[in-house]
Amino acid sequence: MPYVNIKITKEGATVEQKAQIIKGVTQLLVDVLGKNPQTTVVVIDEVETDNWGIGGESVTMRRKRGQ
Amino acid sequence: MPYVNIKITKEGATVEQKAQIIKGVTQLLVDVLGKNPQTTVVVIDEVETDNWGIGGESVTMRRKRGQ
Amino acid sequence: MPYVNIKITKEGATVEQKAQIIKGVTQLLVDVLGKNPQTTVVVIDEVETDNWGIGGESVTMRRKRGQ
Amino acid sequence: MPYVNIKITKEGATVEQKAQIIKGVTQLLVDVLGKNPQTTVVVIDEVETDNWGIGGESVTMRRKRGQ
Amino acid sequence: MPYVNIKITKEGATVEQKAQIIKGVTQLLVDVLGKNPQTTVVVIDEVETDNWGIGGESVTMRRKRGQ
Amino acid sequence: MPYVNIKITKEGATVEQKAQIIKGVTQLLVDVLGKNPQTTVVVIDEVETDNWGIGGESVTMRRKRGQ
Repeated sequence: MPYVNIKITKEGATVEQKAQIIKGVTQLLVDVLGKNPQTTVVVIDEVETDNWGIGGESVTMRRKRGQ
Repeated sequence: MPYVNIKITKEGATVEQKAQIIKGVTQLLVDVLGKNPQTTVVVIDEVETDNWGIGGESVTMRRKRGQ
Repeated sequence: MPYVNIKITKEGATVEQKAQIIKGVTQLLVDVLGKNPQTTVVVIDEVETDNWGIGGESVTMRRKRGQ
Repeated sequence: MPYVNIKITKEGATVEQKAQIIKGVTQLLVDVLGKNPQTTVVVIDEVETDNWGIGGESVTMRRKRGQ
Repeated sequence: MPYVNIKITKEGATVEQKAQIIKGVTQLLVDVLGKNPQTTVVVIDEVETDNWGIGGESVTMRRKRGQ
Repeated sequence: MPYVNIKITKEGATVEQKAQIIKGVTQLLVDVLGKNPQTTVVVIDEVETDNWGIGGESVTMRRKRGQ
């Protein structure tokens, strides 16, 4: 009955990609730890690039510089 | 001074229902643990059904199958 | 299939009290939002008072002053 | 490599203010704990006032009463 | 630069299993979303079974009943 | 009434350092956003290095290699 929270920047992940993430991480927990997939919850948060910082600055600023 | 985070799928919870959740969980912590309601914080996150997985698939897919 | 995370200071909550919290918040989500209790997950984190701050100081300091 | 999550009510924080928060909290972790800013992640969540409770009621209700 | 938080019950996951989880979920985000593994953070929380509830009761209680 | 969660690896942060973090981040939110410190909550989680991954491996492994 694990709970997984994945936070990524909101930069165009598709419904299909998110479905792959949900499927993949659930399977990983089944394979490695023998967890029950039926009660494994995965929540994906997509965060605006203005609201995500790394290296002391927002991802918006980094993207403007080509990073 | 507890902090409570409640994550639910975004499927039409009303302002009134959310107010009831906030009131109810705060009261529960007062009743059971004697916590001070004035510094009890409750945050409700409503998550798109594409971004919530259980059983290895998204809630969107499950709803399509009638679950 | 909600997920609830409750953070409280580690100050002696008993197993029974934690069971009451789990039961109470699950029931609240059933009553108010019609959620399925079988896939409702509740996680309680008990946090050392040195690691919890409010009003700009730790709970340890506040407890020393009788608050 | 710390991870910082800051939740505030969605009440008009500007891009510039959020950049200051990201910069300031990253610098704080460098100054106090000697952490590497390049792997310090900061995520700001802005939460609707209907979804944030304190004192058992939503911030929306409190704002209506002038609090 | 994703951030992943995995919560599991504290029931004997080994260091090696946790290393496999960290490696697997990081690779999944590289494969599906093209994320940079060098800034992908994974945090695993192991939670006491008294503090984890599902179906309105603690995992401790469920384990006693053989679930 | 912000809520701040800071996750760091458990590698010897002192009570005094944690008090500085609590004080500093609270003040930052007062200075930049005009938040009320009395209802600003800060929770610091110290995570075992086996349970923290970056670059696809645990911090324990990285520390062994001198990183």
